[in-house]
Parts: sequence; structure tokens; C-alpha cells
Amino acid sequence: MIEVYAFATPNSVKVPIALEEMGLAYEMRPVNVRAGEQKAAAFLVLNPNGKVPVLVERDGNTAFVLTESAAILVHLAETTGRLLPTQGAGRARVFEQLFFHASALSPAFGNTGFFKRSAPEPQPIAEARFSAEAERILDLLEEKLTTQRFTAGDDFTIADIAHFGWLWRRAFPGVTLDARPNLSRWYEAIAARPAVQRAIARVEALVPTA
Amino acid sequence: MIEVYAFATPNSVKVPIALEEMGLAYEMRPVNVRAGEQKAAAFLVLNPNGKVPVLVERDGNTAFVLTESAAILVHLAETTGRLLPTQGAGRARVFEQLFFHASALSPAFGNTGFFKRSAPEPQPIAEARFSAEAERILDLLEEKLTTQRFTAGDDFTIADIAHFGWLWRRAFPGVTLDARPNLSRWYEAIAARPAVQRAIARVEALVPTA
Repeated sequence: MIEVYAFATPNSVKVPIALEEMGLAYEMRPVNVRAGEQKAAAFLVLNPNGKVPVLVERDGNTAFVLTESAAILVHLAETTGRLLPTQGAGRARVFEQLFFHASALSPAFGNTGFFKRSAPEPQPIAEARFSAEAERILDLLEEKLTTQRFTAGDDFTIADIAHFGWLWRRAFPGVTLDARPNLSRWYEAIAARPAVQRAIARVEALVPTA
Repeated sequence: MIEVYAFATPNSVKVPIALEEMGLAYEMRPVNVRAGEQKAAAFLVLNPNGKVPVLVERDGNTAFVLTESAAILVHLAETTGRLLPTQGAGRARVFEQLFFHASALSPAFGNTGFFKRSAPEPQPIAEARFSAEAERILDLLEEKLTTQRFTAGDDFTIADIAHFGWLWRRAFPGVTLDARPNLSRWYEAIAARPAVQRAIARVEALVPTA
């Protein structure tokens, strides 16, 4: 059985999107990050880094626990043979985008949101630095999508799932797709996929309605 | 022929370390990032993101160009069958550490160094945020290395090469290995490898001496 410890976050949503696209059954285990549950002792046993998502594959008495959303995407793609070319330049392009996402887009978006919304005092140089970096990264993706349908080539891959996760939560850093027609076209194409819509519904259902 | 566009930077050094460990011949192409050459038009053709390292594999009239240091490590490991298990949990652990490096350690180290050394005005909340995050990440690695020899298990892998690159440049964020005996033991074991020493000599030779 596959369990996904997650919440309605940019990194969490990537995992159910991949599972839905691959046709795998799974159960969601809510970790309310707004209530700090990702720092609770019970969760730190699963992930000492205190972050969602976490994948747990249970088989009888054994459990395989994997953290880092992109590592989970690679693991699922290699297990199923889906959404990741098995060799050649096409495969290298997927890893190039996954690491561009992890090292550039994800921290730029996260830090932009922090300094715009959550910092205890204004840090204008920090805010400007990360905001400019987030815009620069979106421009790079826009340029790439002028000559190819998806971020790692002409096929939909786990690289698109990674990028989509943060673009779905672009209100946090306060960036937009405006004046980026190729990125808009790419986003709408992914948002229209039935598997993506099912996954979003499942992570949104994790948020308490109180 | 393999070319590596690089400088004496934390991300650059990872690529020659992997090439030396794998016994592959290569030529270094210096990109002086202190002089801003990574933003020059000629270089942006290779990598529109304006970052080193870049790998170029030339074969007759064709050239395969790959960016993102960790994507290059994965590509070289899969091409040679070295330093990355081909399946199972051991393989997933390498990707888990590579993405932990890319999304957590690398931006924390880079931003700590920026706010300590390069920001035009002090940004104390930003500096404290990234500095604390860098220390937290080192503590996570120290804890992991209490029960295993290397960061992704008991074997040396490309995950160790990635982490080593930034630890080799730990003076930039101003962090130390002090009071972290397992991380110190891991660092010294890697620094003592002849292939690692050859790679460091080659990237240091890229820095103009005047």
C-alpha cells in the first residue's frame, strides 16, 4: 500500500499528480503544516527534515520511506516506467529540469513568499533579490516553451509535474503568468488533465474547513 | 570529447570529481565568474541560465550540452554505471540526497554567504534565516552519518560528490565542521581520495594568478 503524507502545498501536490497519472492507488495522510504538525516528533521519525511530502510503501511488516518530492517522482517514474525516458538526451533533459526546479525555482518562489508575507520586519534587499530571481526563472521557462511543448521536451514528464506544483501555488510568491503566453498555454494544458484535477482535489481535501 | 565549462566554485568542482572518479578524460574551459563571464552572450548560448558548470560532449559535428551540476552527475553515473546503484532503495537514497542538496543545502549555503558578505546593506533577518538553515542542514547530515559511512548509505556515490562540492567551499557561508565528528570524518575521507584531489587542482588552476 502507498501512503502519501502531505498537505495542500506546492511540493505535496506533485506526488498525487504523479500517482494519478500513473494509475496507482494511494491513501493520503494529512500533515497540517499550518498547525506545525511537520515538526511534531511523530512526523520527524518519518522525515527528520520536517517537510512534506513523504512517501511510504508498506509491504507486510516492512515500510520503505522516501522524502524529497522530486526523488519521489523519480522513484515512481522508474518503478512504473512512466513519464521519464529510459535513456538518451530526453532523459537528461528531465533531470536538468528537475534540478533547475529544486535548486532555482523552488527556493526563489519560497523565499519570495517568505519575504513578502511572513518576515517579521521588511527586508527590502532580500525581497527584491528573490522576487527578481523568481521573475527571471519564469522568463527562462517562457523562452524554453517557445520551441517545445513541455519543459523537458515535447512530451509531458515528471519535470512538468515538479514545475506545475509551484506554479499552482504562485499566489504565495505573488508571481503571475501574465505576458507569458507559452507558460500560460503550458499551465492550462496541465491543469486540464483529469489526473491533475483529481490530485488537486485530494490535497485540497486535506485542509480542515473549520 | 568531454568539455567542462567551469570555475573554482562549489557546483563546478562536482563535475571534474565525478569525471576523475570514473576515469573519463576531459578538458576544462574556464568561465571566470568573478569577471562575470557566465553572463556573457557567448556563454548564454550554452546555458541561458548563466551558471557554471556546463558539460559538452562533442562527437564529430554534434554537441550534447547539459547544465545543472546534479543532472550532469546523474548523466555521467548512468553512462558509466558508476557511483549510483541501478535499482532499489539504495538508488532512491541517492536521489533523495541529491534533491536535498539541490533544494536545501545549496540555496542555504549560497544565501548565507550572500547576506553575510555581498548584500549592499545588512539584512539581519535574512542573514539569520539562512544561517540557521545552513546549521540545521549540517546537523541533519551529522545525524545521518552516525549510522552510515556516506550520505546515501555505506557506499560513496554521486550524492557525496554533490554535498562535498559545497562543503569544500564552506568558508563562503562561514560554516564549519567543528563539533560535528561524523561529518568531519566523512569530509576528510572524501578529501583524501586521489581523484578528488586531482579535480580540485584542475578547478583551482582555472583562477587567474595576477
